Amino acid sequence: MQLKLVVEYDGTDYLGWQLQPDGPTVQSVLEQALATALREPVRVRVAGRTDAGVHACGQVVSVPVTSVPEDLRRFTLSLNALTPRDIAVRDVSVVDDAFDPRRHARSRVYEYRLLTSRTPSAFWHRYAWHHPQPLDAGAMASASAALLGEHDFTAFCAADADPMQSTVRRVLVSEIRRDADLLVYRIEATAFLKHMVRNVVGTLVEIGRGERPIRALGDVLAGCDRRRAGATAPPHGLTLMLVRY
Amino acid sequence: MQLKLVVEYDGTDYLGWQLQPDGPTVQSVLEQALATALREPVRVRVAGRTDAGVHACGQVVSVPVTSVPEDLRRFTLSLNALTPRDIAVRDVSVVDDAFDPRRHARSRVYEYRLLTSRTPSAFWHRYAWHHPQPLDAGAMASASAALLGEHDFTAFCAADADPMQSTVRRVLVSEIRRDADLLVYRIEATAFLKHMVRNVVGTLVEIGRGERPIRALGDVLAGCDRRRAGATAPPHGLTLMLVRY
Repeated sequence: MQLKLVVEYDGTDYLGWQLQPDGPTVQSVLEQALATALREPVRVRVAGRTDAGVHACGQVVSVPVTSVPEDLRRFTLSLNALTPRDIAVRDVSVVDDAFDPRRHARSRVYEYRLLTSRTPSAFWHRYAWHHPQPLDAGAMASASAALLGEHDFTAFCAADADPMQSTVRRVLVSEIRRDADLLVYRIEATAFLKHMVRNVVGTLVEIGRGERPIRALGDVLAGCDRRRAGATAPPHGLTLMLVRY
Repeated sequence: MQLKLVVEYDGTDYLGWQLQPDGPTVQSVLEQALATALREPVRVRVAGRTDAGVHACGQVVSVPVTSVPEDLRRFTLSLNALTPRDIAVRDVSVVDDAFDPRRHARSRVYEYRLLTSRTPSAFWHRYAWHHPQPLDAGAMASASAALLGEHDFTAFCAADADPMQSTVRRVLVSEIRRDADLLVYRIEATAFLKHMVRNVVGTLVEIGRGERPIRALGDVLAGCDRRRAGATAPPHGLTLMLVRY
């Protein structure tokens, strides 16, 4: 049997999701809490590895167990007592052995927050990229639609990405909304390439500043050349919102 | 001349607003930044002193200056570069010497956030009191209306409050709203006594749990006996939202 966990984390103080020799990661802290709660060594699988500094509301994790805890509600409570306060287990359920959180995911939703106020914020500095210069949100919204549908996303992929992996992805949602001082970019796709959202946002911000025309996002995409994309946006504005199965 | 500052802070890592010998306070950090930016020693005045762990979005501060900075926008930027990221100066304007941020305030608005989800949250743990047991929000909303108008608030005042200070305050807004997993209590009053909001929230939560009837909030208020109020709610759920002049 396996347990399926929905996990929320503030990525500020972690070196990303994946195990690292040189510091704490969300995976290492979560595996330690699970091993203590289950009284057995564990190795988890995850829906989407997040970079250092990236957050998650609805990360999905699976963990094979030799026996299922009797009271899942109580187990969730004890798990949360074992994790630091910036990692919270929001839900635990039982799934069969075949469940694979990465391969079975139909889509993932990410949001990237830009704080557009002239001055910084004491509350958003961990969760939004502060961009005090004016941004043309309308131009960014128009541009963002160019990603909808199935495309080769080589242009927005990290330089060190796995060259054997397919770079074709289907984008289901790509939109900008304003929420008080925040501009929120929401993208839902079947899957994502390394740094894909941050590279898209970097390009969108250059369009919002008026440095590139609206059609630039579609042109960069069609060009399949990662040197033409904008600078990679910083990680702390990015949150994995949810994973659909 | 004086400068009027609107200040936002995450109170988590401070011993409250007011200068303390035994650790950093928002006042001490802000005065240090102002002294550096203005190149003169300063002493600020504040609209409302907040307790250790309490946050502010719109705290108002005044500081007498020998000369006004030429470019207030640039001055605000340099001030924000001098403060840590959990203290942000949102606005700076010039006011005359007579301005007193405390005595001239017509009213203050505070909000207290309760996180009502079964599990904790990685994002709200600094800004909301996690109350996983069910709360009757309707009962709390009905009860909260009893505070509206002018009353003697002795019942909700801290035991060590200044006995020479009047305990009569006028409450203009006292209401509960739901915002996803949060219950937010908003109260606006001409002024507040020490621990007043936290003692009101402690009593409201006991009503929400069904431990006291809806009329209990009004009864405690009318009784003017602080031993009858509920337990003081923890500070980290509380935020000073704004000050009206």
